[in-house]
Amino acid sequence: MNKRLNLLLFSGEYDKALAALILANGAKENGMDVTIFCAFWGLLVIRKEGYENSIDKTISQKMFEKMIPKNAEDLNISNMNFLGAGQRMLKHMMKESDKPMLKDFLDGARHKNVKFYACKLSQEVMGFTKEELIDEAITIEVDQYLKDALESDIQLFI
Amino acid sequence: MNKRLNLLLFSGEYDKALAALILANGAKENGMDVTIFCAFWGLLVIRKEGYENSIDKTISQKMFEKMIPKNAEDLNISNMNFLGAGQRMLKHMMKESDKPMLKDFLDGARHKNVKFYACKLSQEVMGFTKEELIDEAITIEVDQYLKDALESDIQLFI
Amino acid sequence: MNKRLNLLLFSGEYDKALAALILANGAKENGMDVTIFCAFWGLLVIRKEGYENSIDKTISQKMFEKMIPKNAEDLNISNMNFLGAGQRMLKHMMKESDKPMLKDFLDGARHKNVKFYACKLSQEVMGFTKEELIDEAITIEVDQYLKDALESDIQLFI
Repeated sequence: MNKRLNLLLFSGEYDKALAALILANGAKENGMDVTIFCAFWGLLVIRKEGYENSIDKTISQKMFEKMIPKNAEDLNISNMNFLGAGQRMLKHMMKESDKPMLKDFLDGARHKNVKFYACKLSQEVMGFTKEELIDEAITIEVDQYLKDALESDIQLFI
Repeated sequence: MNKRLNLLLFSGEYDKALAALILANGAKENGMDVTIFCAFWGLLVIRKEGYENSIDKTISQKMFEKMIPKNAEDLNISNMNFLGAGQRMLKHMMKESDKPMLKDFLDGARHKNVKFYACKLSQEVMGFTKEELIDEAITIEVDQYLKDALESDIQLFI
Repeated sequence: MNKRLNLLLFSGEYDKALAALILANGAKENGMDVTIFCAFWGLLVIRKEGYENSIDKTISQKMFEKMIPKNAEDLNISNMNFLGAGQRMLKHMMKESDKPMLKDFLDGARHKNVKFYACKLSQEVMGFTKEELIDEAITIEVDQYLKDALESDIQLFI
């Protein structure tokens, strides 16, 4: 039985998503099984790029769609964001030190078969349809998250 | 022996408190025992509505009382709060999709006998007396939190 | 075998660092082994006071050095910071209720032999050299963090 890492990705910030995906990739490379349960802002990390869906959305949900970052690379950072200047600086420093970007770590996690779950309640509130999220994301409820977390060796809330 | 969920609720934001209480309710519904240790801003979630106590408080603590949200429903959100506009929008979207509010999840957790602990050090710093917190909240020190966390199957810092 | 507490300190905010170090001190006092893996903003907590190093840094990293708090006591708080006024008020309330400051808890943790690890990737991005961090901090990669976390009884992401 492989050791298991279970992440509850609540945050939708560039740096925190980066931390989650670096952990996920690292765990996979070390033979662990990895689950990421994306809830609330965490759903912003697994939205398809450029996807816009205004059918079946309420007016609030359409407004919300206009306000949120268009893709994972546009997420703000959790500290010293300075209206995006801090985020651009962090990304510049990542490039200068030859580090992959968030989207690369996300692609890596997907290729390594990290399991992505999406929180049903959050999806319903934010109006994110299944089509808006990456294809392998499975929508689950909180009791399935808990079951999975109980079977894991490390559980983190990010 | 029931499985146990242990939450350290540090944050005092609407969305994070919601995540904690949704997890707590879900765990209880699935036969788990649940403890929420409220520290720092997490104490704002378990303050009695409308309670104001200016006796035994320092001037700073009285000022602090004026600045903090009056009750759990007034808490800001952790992302895109926009001076409260984002919070109102999130709550509006929750209502539109027929979701309970934070206070409902809090009531649910209380009725299901989730154990609420309050951090003694945080209470002393912020000047929150026992009377200001929900009646069942028990004030404990960090070593009691650690003991409880060690006996739990899932521990999360929210 | 002692019980083990493993903290991933991602945040560089005064109140969250305080929570991490209070837990670390408390765990040590109760006979537990404690590891703190400082990543991203968490590295700000274990930087040497007043250390400035402009050799081997890129222009961005030098700018970054100018922007970040000079030492742990200058970190912002995660809620109601109000450009530092909230932080000063919190620290004032801590002093009024005879609580140690962050630097005291950090000193305590160091004297009690809490193990401090620094995230290699974060150091490279932010340009923090080994000399800039407290002497006992050991630079490790994410797989060593995971190994340590798997051997621990409590793992928290702060």
